[in-house]
Amino acid sequence: MPLQVLSQHACFGGTQTFYQHASTEIGLPMRVGVYLPPQAQQGPVPALLYLAGLTCTEETFAIKAGAQRVAAELGLALISPDTSPRGAGVPGESDAWDLGVGAGFYLDATEAPWAPHWRMESYLLRELLPLLSQHLPIDGQRLGITGHSMGGHGALTLALRHPGRFKSLSALAPICAPTRCPWGEKAFTAYLGSHRSAWVGHDACELLATRGEALLNQPILVDQGLHDKFLEEQLHPHLLEAACAQVGQALTLRRHAGYDHGYYFVASVIEDHLRHHAAQL
Amino acid sequence: MPLQVLSQHACFGGTQTFYQHASTEIGLPMRVGVYLPPQAQQGPVPALLYLAGLTCTEETFAIKAGAQRVAAELGLALISPDTSPRGAGVPGESDAWDLGVGAGFYLDATEAPWAPHWRMESYLLRELLPLLSQHLPIDGQRLGITGHSMGGHGALTLALRHPGRFKSLSALAPICAPTRCPWGEKAFTAYLGSHRSAWVGHDACELLATRGEALLNQPILVDQGLHDKFLEEQLHPHLLEAACAQVGQALTLRRHAGYDHGYYFVASVIEDHLRHHAAQL
Repeated sequence: MPLQVLSQHACFGGTQTFYQHASTEIGLPMRVGVYLPPQAQQGPVPALLYLAGLTCTEETFAIKAGAQRVAAELGLALISPDTSPRGAGVPGESDAWDLGVGAGFYLDATEAPWAPHWRMESYLLRELLPLLSQHLPIDGQRLGITGHSMGGHGALTLALRHPGRFKSLSALAPICAPTRCPWGEKAFTAYLGSHRSAWVGHDACELLATRGEALLNQPILVDQGLHDKFLEEQLHPHLLEAACAQVGQALTLRRHAGYDHGYYFVASVIEDHLRHHAAQL
Repeated sequence: MPLQVLSQHACFGGTQTFYQHASTEIGLPMRVGVYLPPQAQQGPVPALLYLAGLTCTEETFAIKAGAQRVAAELGLALISPDTSPRGAGVPGESDAWDLGVGAGFYLDATEAPWAPHWRMESYLLRELLPLLSQHLPIDGQRLGITGHSMGGHGALTLALRHPGRFKSLSALAPICAPTRCPWGEKAFTAYLGSHRSAWVGHDACELLATRGEALLNQPILVDQGLHDKFLEEQLHPHLLEAACAQVGQALTLRRHAGYDHGYYFVASVIEDHLRHHAAQL
């Protein structure tokens, strides 16, 4: 089996495992966390792909979100990939926390020096998900996608770019309009070049406006803390709200007074996200 | 207020805060995590003191155990202190992960070079708990105590050494008989000297056998994973079981197939512990 077990832990009657595998798309070893609920012992279960934010790893969600309890109840697998290639040796790859290592932005870079390894979209869609459903009791036809911050951007854009691939969608404090915030502008310039025409295919608001076939039948669930220090400058949920309204995409956007950007917020709302996905899967 | 806020996060309708304060007992700044449930806005609430294990900090339980959700439901505050003094500059204090920094063993050291700062028992009982109930909406008369591994030893021994101070007691994968395991022998030799007569007052099994007045009216709840790599050599729950049986102390000892020593195990059973304490507080 191409998935090498790094560690495995019993958890709420299921199993939290961390794997490493040689990724063809990335050209490097990649790590991923998988929680299999007890129901997976009887056969394939639906899965929720969780994309983490800047600086996070495949362990962050598994350790901090407390999602396994509800996943065990609902019979939902949880897949938590890493946030970028590691060990590529690209000059400057670790110089900034919002570019390079830990900051893959869930797209395929077209620009040097990133293009050879920074291929997170192809890695996830063409390689990781098929690999997991081939080797683990995961039903590749019943996948939901969610994510936090940069991973929220990833969830929104991958669901919209690959219609039908994900049956349910939600996001936590997502970067909603990366072409219009400093994090996105910096990353897209580096990964996709300075021509903004190449960016719009990776901006959830732009995708909603231009790809009618990408709309979901179900509402998108988005949670956002109002004490989030990145809200004003980076996240722009009001732009997602406007984009959804304009094209008739149902959106449940919940704003939470007092909550910040971190995992104490994620943990507080993750149960609702798992139930949102389980109901649609 | 002597408690300096380091960070504060909304969490399940309550607040997870990390404080630093100048500790007189320790002679150094100490950190502590406090979760206040929503009910604390109406007045003092009962609290559960959670003592963490080797290498952990005041953040470990707050980040990894997922206990705030149930604490919010039950109206229980959660207090998570650090596991030792930090910054004392004792020679060799960070050379080993099972002695010195991160390994206070919840006792007052009598031996050089540890005695001046390694005073975790006095710190917790005489300083931290009074400080918190004085400045936060915590009812100092309704305290329960629990802990994991080294912290399980701490919970058992502090409850037995201070009868009536804690109204409820539980432990997760505790070191049950530190005078009879390598971790305990090493730490007690360093902190208490080589005479075993000084050790028995800090061994839960010995305390049960010798201090009849320390017994609790309520059962002690202990959970232990059977895939725990420290079970055979270090933890010895069967000795606690025998000690309780001999003196008539009620004990609910649950052994869990497949579970290891880590926080995926702690997270899986912590809800039962919070309910155990809330029912007695």
